Amino acid sequence: MKKLINDPGDVVTQSVAGLVSAHGDVLTASTDPLFVSRAGGAVSGKVGLVSGGGSGHEPLHAGFVGVGMLDAAVPGAVFTSPSPEPILAAMQAADGGAGVMQIVKNYTGDVLNFEVAAELGEAEGMTVRSVLVADDVAVEDSTWTAGRRGVAGTLVVEKIAGAAAERGDDLDAVVAVAERTARAVRTMGIALHAPTVPAAGRPSFDLEDDEVELGIGIHGEPGRSRVKAASADETATLLLDAVLADLGDVSGREVLLLVNGMGATPALELYVLYGAARRLLEERGASVVRSLVGSYVTSLDMAGASISVMPLDEELITLWDAPAHTVALRQGM
Amino acid sequence: MKKLINDPGDVVTQSVAGLVSAHGDVLTASTDPLFVSRAGGAVSGKVGLVSGGGSGHEPLHAGFVGVGMLDAAVPGAVFTSPSPEPILAAMQAADGGAGVMQIVKNYTGDVLNFEVAAELGEAEGMTVRSVLVADDVAVEDSTWTAGRRGVAGTLVVEKIAGAAAERGDDLDAVVAVAERTARAVRTMGIALHAPTVPAAGRPSFDLEDDEVELGIGIHGEPGRSRVKAASADETATLLLDAVLADLGDVSGREVLLLVNGMGATPALELYVLYGAARRLLEERGASVVRSLVGSYVTSLDMAGASISVMPLDEELITLWDAPAHTVALRQGM
Repeated sequence: MKKLINDPGDVVTQSVAGLVSAHGDVLTASTDPLFVSRAGGAVSGKVGLVSGGGSGHEPLHAGFVGVGMLDAAVPGAVFTSPSPEPILAAMQAADGGAGVMQIVKNYTGDVLNFEVAAELGEAEGMTVRSVLVADDVAVEDSTWTAGRRGVAGTLVVEKIAGAAAERGDDLDAVVAVAERTARAVRTMGIALHAPTVPAAGRPSFDLEDDEVELGIGIHGEPGRSRVKAASADETATLLLDAVLADLGDVSGREVLLLVNGMGATPALELYVLYGAARRLLEERGASVVRSLVGSYVTSLDMAGASISVMPLDEELITLWDAPAHTVALRQGM
Repeated sequence: MKKLINDPGDVVTQSVAGLVSAHGDVLTASTDPLFVSRAGGAVSGKVGLVSGGGSGHEPLHAGFVGVGMLDAAVPGAVFTSPSPEPILAAMQAADGGAGVMQIVKNYTGDVLNFEVAAELGEAEGMTVRSVLVADDVAVEDSTWTAGRRGVAGTLVVEKIAGAAAERGDDLDAVVAVAERTARAVRTMGIALHAPTVPAAGRPSFDLEDDEVELGIGIHGEPGRSRVKAASADETATLLLDAVLADLGDVSGREVLLLVNGMGATPALELYVLYGAARRLLEERGASVVRSLVGSYVTSLDMAGASISVMPLDEELITLWDAPAHTVALRQGM
């Protein structure tokens, strides 16, 4: 294993320290317990948005802390849920008196630990709501999940809910639009090479030279099947067919298309895949009116990508277009 | 070889098509000859900035076309210089009547082809100047270079010169600040794994499991030496020592620190390396007042990173901070 780290046990704390020292205008961090929060602290009267989960998916979540997205993020150890204590501390840092909403990817550990943190927060008088993201259509249950996994769609929920909170929507309204987004966005991914967890030191799984894992999650957990490696056009078809089988007819709909890199896949390839996916969507009668292409919800150094589609309406477009100033996503400010 | 592409011969044109369809608000493309230019066309009275070179370094250069950076970019085949014809066409598209400045990475093919394009442009009455970037301190000559190679520092020159052109500086002034930037920025990189060129189908070189290439370029060309893989702290020291040996004493200076990923290295690791580099610079008395961390000047799916340092003054800070709206870099708008 060759990685630009010092010690597998220190990688998350050192990376967060680097992140915060590079971007002090956007975010700050507490080291004990470890969480990242918006520079300048909680915004009085604004709903506080908190997310988190195992590390290794950067820039998710800390890279989306800032104006117009999250107020705080809690990075656990690599691929390991953070415990309730830092989640509670992050919620306290995010609480501007208008309630706190958690955005939780659907993994058993995350669901449990965010739930305990919510109970602790409520016990001290905080109003807490939670929205679950389970956008991965690949499998119904998996290694660490009852039900579907939360993957790249999480970023979409963070952007939409973040914009709603930023413009002053109250807790019920932010929860409503976050739940609507979480229900609307669907994703499926593929892996060309497995990730290597620093503490493990070797790839999480082995793929033959001509083999890919279809329906991969973001922790190297198995997907639907191993298939022969195919062209970008064929891959886009496989992924989109699965997404649209679940989403239903998109003919006549305006949609968001997100092509997300898993970590080690170059932009050159992501844009080839994006072009193929966009053509297919248009052939099925959809209008791609908003797009995002990049490595946003990753799995360490896994090679591969996912395709997410979300039907849009006027409100979702307004919130997607709203200003954001975070490390990994910036627009209009 | 597993890649999300259709055919090695089509990868650049298909990727550019995807890029332009995703970001039509920022850029547009001509397909024959192939170049990318700013949406809305040349800005009358503004110095036009054009760069380009072999593909495989994305987001460089097309990802930096837009307000506050480049007016046009010319992507060649992978790791292959574009010919004079598309460069000339890009210059024509960028020409707002105030002259055109080329930003050229110091590779023999690029230097030659941009020079021929400049002569053709001048023959038809265009005023053309050219600025060479040769920021890589690793080697004096290499596979495709007489003199030093142009690497991650190119992005810094494009940002600074782009801001100067955008605020209305005349051609002499834009050239002067671009040359000053190109002289001031120094870079050195390391590879953990080689890139795989699509048409070649296998990694450009082989590294043992415990071996890295120190002083790597961005085409898999050899660096200074193969050394044992080391920690992020030790790697930062190796790279910074080389940069500072060339740059001279930075004690008491304000500097820009750019930690650039080579393509397959996750953000988690880049921020660990950034943190280490920043500490070392501060130990040597420098003040890191501006930072950029990400995969901006890449080498396909090569794993590794480079560290760039540039001493700053008030003018360079003003230009670095100026608004930019490109696909890969956005600030203040």
